[in-house]
Amino acid sequence: MARQLAQFSETPDGLTCTYLSPAHKAAAARLRDWMQTAGLAAQIDAVGNVVGHYPSAARGAKTLIVGSHYDTVVNAGRFDGRLGVLTALAVAEYLAGVGRPLPFHLDVIGFAEEEGVRFAAPYLGSSAIAGRFDAAVLQRSDKNGLKLGSLLQEQGVGIGDIRRLARPPETLRGYLEVHVEQGPVLLDKNLPVGIVTAIAGSARFHIAVRGTAGHAGTVPMSLRHDAATAAAEVVLAVERRCSGAATLVGTVGQLAVPYGSINVIPGACELSLDLRAGDDGVRGDAIADIVAAAQNVAARRGVTIEISEIGSHPAVPCSDATQAALAETIARTGIAPFHLASGAGHDAAMFGGLTEIGMLFVRCGNGGVSHSPLETVTVEDVDIAARVLLDVLVNLN
Amino acid sequence: MARQLAQFSETPDGLTCTYLSPAHKAAAARLRDWMQTAGLAAQIDAVGNVVGHYPSAARGAKTLIVGSHYDTVVNAGRFDGRLGVLTALAVAEYLAGVGRPLPFHLDVIGFAEEEGVRFAAPYLGSSAIAGRFDAAVLQRSDKNGLKLGSLLQEQGVGIGDIRRLARPPETLRGYLEVHVEQGPVLLDKNLPVGIVTAIAGSARFHIAVRGTAGHAGTVPMSLRHDAATAAAEVVLAVERRCSGAATLVGTVGQLAVPYGSINVIPGACELSLDLRAGDDGVRGDAIADIVAAAQNVAARRGVTIEISEIGSHPAVPCSDATQAALAETIARTGIAPFHLASGAGHDAAMFGGLTEIGMLFVRCGNGGVSHSPLETVTVEDVDIAARVLLDVLVNLN
Repeated sequence: MARQLAQFSETPDGLTCTYLSPAHKAAAARLRDWMQTAGLAAQIDAVGNVVGHYPSAARGAKTLIVGSHYDTVVNAGRFDGRLGVLTALAVAEYLAGVGRPLPFHLDVIGFAEEEGVRFAAPYLGSSAIAGRFDAAVLQRSDKNGLKLGSLLQEQGVGIGDIRRLARPPETLRGYLEVHVEQGPVLLDKNLPVGIVTAIAGSARFHIAVRGTAGHAGTVPMSLRHDAATAAAEVVLAVERRCSGAATLVGTVGQLAVPYGSINVIPGACELSLDLRAGDDGVRGDAIADIVAAAQNVAARRGVTIEISEIGSHPAVPCSDATQAALAETIARTGIAPFHLASGAGHDAAMFGGLTEIGMLFVRCGNGGVSHSPLETVTVEDVDIAARVLLDVLVNLN
Repeated sequence: MARQLAQFSETPDGLTCTYLSPAHKAAAARLRDWMQTAGLAAQIDAVGNVVGHYPSAARGAKTLIVGSHYDTVVNAGRFDGRLGVLTALAVAEYLAGVGRPLPFHLDVIGFAEEEGVRFAAPYLGSSAIAGRFDAAVLQRSDKNGLKLGSLLQEQGVGIGDIRRLARPPETLRGYLEVHVEQGPVLLDKNLPVGIVTAIAGSARFHIAVRGTAGHAGTVPMSLRHDAATAAAEVVLAVERRCSGAATLVGTVGQLAVPYGSINVIPGACELSLDLRAGDDGVRGDAIADIVAAAQNVAARRGVTIEISEIGSHPAVPCSDATQAALAETIARTGIAPFHLASGAGHDAAMFGGLTEIGMLFVRCGNGGVSHSPLETVTVEDVDIAARVLLDVLVNLN
C-alpha cells in the first residue's frame, strides 16, 4: 500500500508529495477510499487530514487517535509518516472486520502536513486537530509566492473552519503513533520495534570564534590565537559531553573558516550546534557544560567564543502508562522491550500535555537512512508493529 | 624615506606598488636618484631592479649584494622589502661619504618584484640577478590579460636581456638582506634585531575527510562517523605536533563542511595544511607524524582521510659564517644575539646555494602584523639594524 500511495508524486522519479499539491490530494482521496473500504466512516477535513472513524458503543466514550502524516519531504522514502497511517488502518480494518468493540472511539488519522516543506509550516495537520494551529502560518507563501491562506480560501476554508477541527482534550483517550525510526538504533540492537520514551527537546546555536589572523609562516605556534584550533576544541567538547549520556546528542553540522586562506592563520571560525535530549534537564546541563568548556577554551587560547541560541523547543515525554502497555505487549511477543528517545519531531508532539501519548518505532533498514529513497523497512517488522498496536488497543481501557 | 617612497601608489588610500605600474616605475626612478645622490653608480636594469654600485679598488674583488625588494602587496605596509633597500642605501651612503674602501664591490639592489602580485611570478627581480629566472613566467598575464612577456617586449626587453643580468656565482662574495620580521617573535623577545637561520621550507596539502552524513537527532553519538569531529582531531593533531619544535609551524587555514546543515551530521569536511620548518628533515618528520595521526583518527572513527600534497619547496639555510658575523656584531652593541627562522620567503632564498647568504630581521611592531598598513618599525630599531649591517660589512674580508 505504501508503494501504491507513492505513485502519487510531484516528481516522475522518486517520491515528493507536499501539501495541497495534486499528488497530495490524490493520495488523500486514495487514503479516504481505503478507510471507507476498511469499514471506517472516513472524510477529508478542512486542512486535508484524512480521518477514519471507528465508533465505540460505550456511553460517553472518549476518542483514541492513531495517526501519522501522509505528506513527504522532497525525494522522500515511502515509509516516513505513511507507515504509521497504514499500520493504524490495517489494525482498524481488522477490528471493524471482526466487529470487535472498543471502550473508546478509534480515529485513524492521516495528517495532511508534518514535514513543513511547502510553507515551512510543520505539524500543520496535527496542530489543527490538537487545537494548536498557529494562524500566523496562513501568511506564509510557497516558493512560487502562493500564500497558504489564499490557497485554503480558494477551497472555501477559513481560520474558523480550522479552529473547529480542534479536539477538546477532555474528549481524548490518548494518541498513538507508529513511525519508522529514521535512525540506526534498532538496527544496531537487532530489534524490530522500540518504545519511544520522549520526543527529544532541542536547542540550536550559532557559535562565533574570533581569534587573530596571522601569517602561517611567521607566527610561532606559541604566539597564535587561532580561531580554527579553538573551534576544533569546541567541536570535540560537544562530542565528548554528549557521548555516553542516554538520549543526548550534539551535532556541529556547519563549520567554516570564512574566506580561509591556506597560508593565513584563521582569525575567525563559525559553527553551528544542535543539541537534543529526551529530557530537558539533561539538555540544559549539557548546554551549560558546553558553554563552560568553550569559555575555558577561549580564555586559555586568547580568543573569544560567542554562543547565541537560535531557537529551542522542549522535550515531549510519552506517557508512562502507554510505554508500559507497549512494553508488556512487546514482551508477550517474545521480543525484548527496548526504550529509546526520538531525536526527530513527530505529530505525536502536538498532543503532548493534552492527552497521553505513545509512539512505537519500527526498525529502519539501510543503516537507518531516512528522508531518502533508500529508506526501508521489512514486511516482518511492520507485521510485528501492527500486532503490537492491535494488542495495545484491545487491552486498553 | 619609506614614507616618501610610499607616495608612489596605485591606490590613493594606502600603498599598492605592483610590478611595472606607473607607481612602481616612479619608485624605481626615485630609488635610483637617491642612490646616485649617495655616491653610487646607479641604474635601473632590464627587469626593473635598481642597482647601486660602490666599487672596490681591490684586485679581483668579488661583489657583495645587499638588497631587498621595492614592490609591494596590495594595501601594503611601508617597510616590507623597502626597509632592506633603504638600510643598505644608508650604509652605502656612509661608506661612500667617508670613502671607506672595502675588499669587495658592494651592490645595493632594490629588486623590482618579489611579492608576485601582478603576474603570480614572485622573486622576479632576484631570480634574474641570481640566474634563476624562469622564462615560463613571461607567458603569465595580469588580471587585465596583459602578458608579462609582451609588457617587457614593449620596453625592448627580451629573454636574452634578462639572462644577461645573471651574476656568475664565482663573482659573488655573498648576499645580505635586512627585512622587517613580519611576525611577533622579536617583539615577544623584546629584541630589536634577530639573525635568520634559514628561510623555511614549506609544504602544502589538501585534506579530505569522508564520513557518513546522518540526521542530527536520530543517530546516537556512538553510531556516528562524523567527518567534522574527525577533522577537528586532525586540526588539533597538527597543532600539537608542531608546537614545541623550533622553527616548525603548521596551519590549517581552510576548514569547511561543504553544504553543512545545522541538523545534519557532517558527511564530509575539507581542510588545508601548510607546514614550514627551517630544516627539511624536521618538516618531513612532522608530515609523517601528522599523516600517521590522521590515519589513526580515520581508523578509530570509521571515516577516510586523504592527504594530498599540493606543493613544496626546500628550506634555504643562511651561512654559518654570516650568522656568526652578525652575532658577533650584535653582541658588541650589547644586544643578545637571537636566532630565528624566517617562515616567509625572501629574495635571499634565490641566492641560496650560489653564495653565502645572511639575513637580519628587524622587530615588527603592532603585534608583528605585516602585509597591512598597520605594519610598523621603530626608528631606533632601524638605526640598530643599519649599524649592525655597517659593522658586518667593514669587518668582512
